[in-house]
Amino acid sequence: MTDISTAPVLIAVDEPSGIGVLTLNRPRERNPLSAETMREVTAGLRALSADARVIVVRAEGPVFSAGHDLREMIGRTLEDERAIFDTCNEMMRTVQSIPQPVIASVQGTAVAAGCQLVAACDLAVASSDAQFGTPGVKIGLFCSTPMVAVSRAVGRKRALQMLLTGDTIDAHTAAEWGLVNFVVEPEALETATTELAAKIVGASPATVKIGKEAFYRQIDLPQDEAYAAMAETMAQNAVICDAQEGMSAFVEKRAPVWQGR
Amino acid sequence: MTDISTAPVLIAVDEPSGIGVLTLNRPRERNPLSAETMREVTAGLRALSADARVIVVRAEGPVFSAGHDLREMIGRTLEDERAIFDTCNEMMRTVQSIPQPVIASVQGTAVAAGCQLVAACDLAVASSDAQFGTPGVKIGLFCSTPMVAVSRAVGRKRALQMLLTGDTIDAHTAAEWGLVNFVVEPEALETATTELAAKIVGASPATVKIGKEAFYRQIDLPQDEAYAAMAETMAQNAVICDAQEGMSAFVEKRAPVWQGR
Amino acid sequence: MTDISTAPVLIAVDEPSGIGVLTLNRPRERNPLSAETMREVTAGLRALSADARVIVVRAEGPVFSAGHDLREMIGRTLEDERAIFDTCNEMMRTVQSIPQPVIASVQGTAVAAGCQLVAACDLAVASSDAQFGTPGVKIGLFCSTPMVAVSRAVGRKRALQMLLTGDTIDAHTAAEWGLVNFVVEPEALETATTELAAKIVGASPATVKIGKEAFYRQIDLPQDEAYAAMAETMAQNAVICDAQEGMSAFVEKRAPVWQGR
Repeated sequence: MTDISTAPVLIAVDEPSGIGVLTLNRPRERNPLSAETMREVTAGLRALSADARVIVVRAEGPVFSAGHDLREMIGRTLEDERAIFDTCNEMMRTVQSIPQPVIASVQGTAVAAGCQLVAACDLAVASSDAQFGTPGVKIGLFCSTPMVAVSRAVGRKRALQMLLTGDTIDAHTAAEWGLVNFVVEPEALETATTELAAKIVGASPATVKIGKEAFYRQIDLPQDEAYAAMAETMAQNAVICDAQEGMSAFVEKRAPVWQGR
Repeated sequence: MTDISTAPVLIAVDEPSGIGVLTLNRPRERNPLSAETMREVTAGLRALSADARVIVVRAEGPVFSAGHDLREMIGRTLEDERAIFDTCNEMMRTVQSIPQPVIASVQGTAVAAGCQLVAACDLAVASSDAQFGTPGVKIGLFCSTPMVAVSRAVGRKRALQMLLTGDTIDAHTAAEWGLVNFVVEPEALETATTELAAKIVGASPATVKIGKEAFYRQIDLPQDEAYAAMAETMAQNAVICDAQEGMSAFVEKRAPVWQGR
Repeated sequence: MTDISTAPVLIAVDEPSGIGVLTLNRPRERNPLSAETMREVTAGLRALSADARVIVVRAEGPVFSAGHDLREMIGRTLEDERAIFDTCNEMMRTVQSIPQPVIASVQGTAVAAGCQLVAACDLAVASSDAQFGTPGVKIGLFCSTPMVAVSRAVGRKRALQMLLTGDTIDAHTAAEWGLVNFVVEPEALETATTELAAKIVGASPATVKIGKEAFYRQIDLPQDEAYAAMAETMAQNAVICDAQEGMSAFVEKRAPVWQGR
């Protein structure tokens, strides 16, 4: 999948699988999330969302992403800095607001906003050589936006450990803490990611869309409100064609046929 | 404990232990949570709550519960579907709103609403052969109400993995992720569950009631509000007879004697 | 570090390291958190906050803390009890509201409010012999204020297990569940704690202060609100001297020099 393009972000949809792939493509610079790159990632996710049924976020080179481009943040005004973090928030929100599941496929180092991107993805597969961290404290810039995603993934004490020490954790620890779902040998990363993506491609796109949207809508609600909202969501889901087809196929012990995308 | 009754749900209180047992009793149909069964579970929990000091939810046969009865959900109106999920929510809320702790005792498969029921119970003991999952995505009906309980038990990435892939996890994984408390060999399931129940029976019922109600009241609050509410709850708890007796007994190094139920 | 003082709480700042140490110093009574001791801890944390860059909370003797002093809670009025739990809440809130990270260093038993204190600390190092529990249920006084911190650290099912059974968990389980960060051999506890503290002392105090305050401000917010708040916090952080110095030093591959405290 090596690409000689000079664009910071590449997108492609594999047909007929329907798996979209977004690639961070500045390996020599350690895939920094510059403002331009973040805007490209947001635009790339939206473009893939029109055609793909699941999206993989991966990176060229030995490093997944070293986080923000610090050279953009030195000597700037408060307004400039705000613009950068708003651009970052928009990218992270887009990962979760598009209807298709987004899978991070991570090798090497994923730190600061790079770690946040992994935490924000719906699912993550990591190479056993991967490292995750929020080292901003070491350079005077606490990883405050990364901690939104990271603390919701790994819990309080572990998030504070990453944030206050700036130390990285290895892939197995990341899996134990719930930051990534699977750890595989480096040479199996692409295959394992594709297998996971293919599993989701087999499901009804309409149902996956309902489910992903509902997940993020309910997760921060008090439980009673979440139950009330999800009962309505699930009732609405139950009457769509794909649910009626899926339930009928299950009862009749045959494979379902989903309606388009 | 095999029962030849044809009722979908059986209830019994063991005396003198005070352990109530609710049994899902349609093993041949894989203990589906039909609307009728869910209403029976809700009624059974309320009935047991009048007499028992702790309640075990178990199931006859090789499967704990396969979830909703799909045949009830095919070809129905939106109103019909809403009624089913409202009935389900009422059952799940009842598990947590009755004063007595509810322990799930799980063998075989617990999926969809069956997995949700385990997640909703205060505690859970699993046989090492148990499997847990939210496979609705595979039949076009995303497990949106199960995810309320499951995502609050296992966290975001792991919940999304279960929800988006539909794959089951085994008992040891469920314990690692916090979905169940204990995993035991299949032949030890009943004994381990009873031992756990007996431990709770030894406590002051008034205190357990205060504690369980308080737990669910505080869990979704911002921490400051939770502290304020719990300081008042604990002060009120401290002046009841059983607390005064319990503290005195501890200081005097004797066994406490609780006031009735 | 044995101290022959009879004060219930000792404080000291190690110079030049800048590590503050607060010691629970009633080992013979198992370091009870009496109202007086809790007020002393609160005052001690505030005093250390004026001089230290990181604070260690430790205890003399074989027991970290057995929790509240029950003798203060027998035969009291509701108003008296309220005063005790308000004093306790104030101590727990102070741990998190002072700008410096607070590290619990735990040997032996940490139960009830003692366990809560560990849960409330930003980080925790435990001796392998440490035990943690919320045994109030056994004496008729449910650990309702401890459960605020404990349930937010270990999750629902595990918190309910601790709360409803009153059983303790060992140090390795506490680490697996996210209640403590590190487990070390008893003889390595002080060294491991100091090493962790020293790592944080190396960071910019202004940045650590921004980060700790921001962590607790965002953790209970819905994710979208948290992102909005943290983007502003991180932009404000980016323009302070220490961040500009830290980023410049990183780009220039030299060590940063932080501005005072």
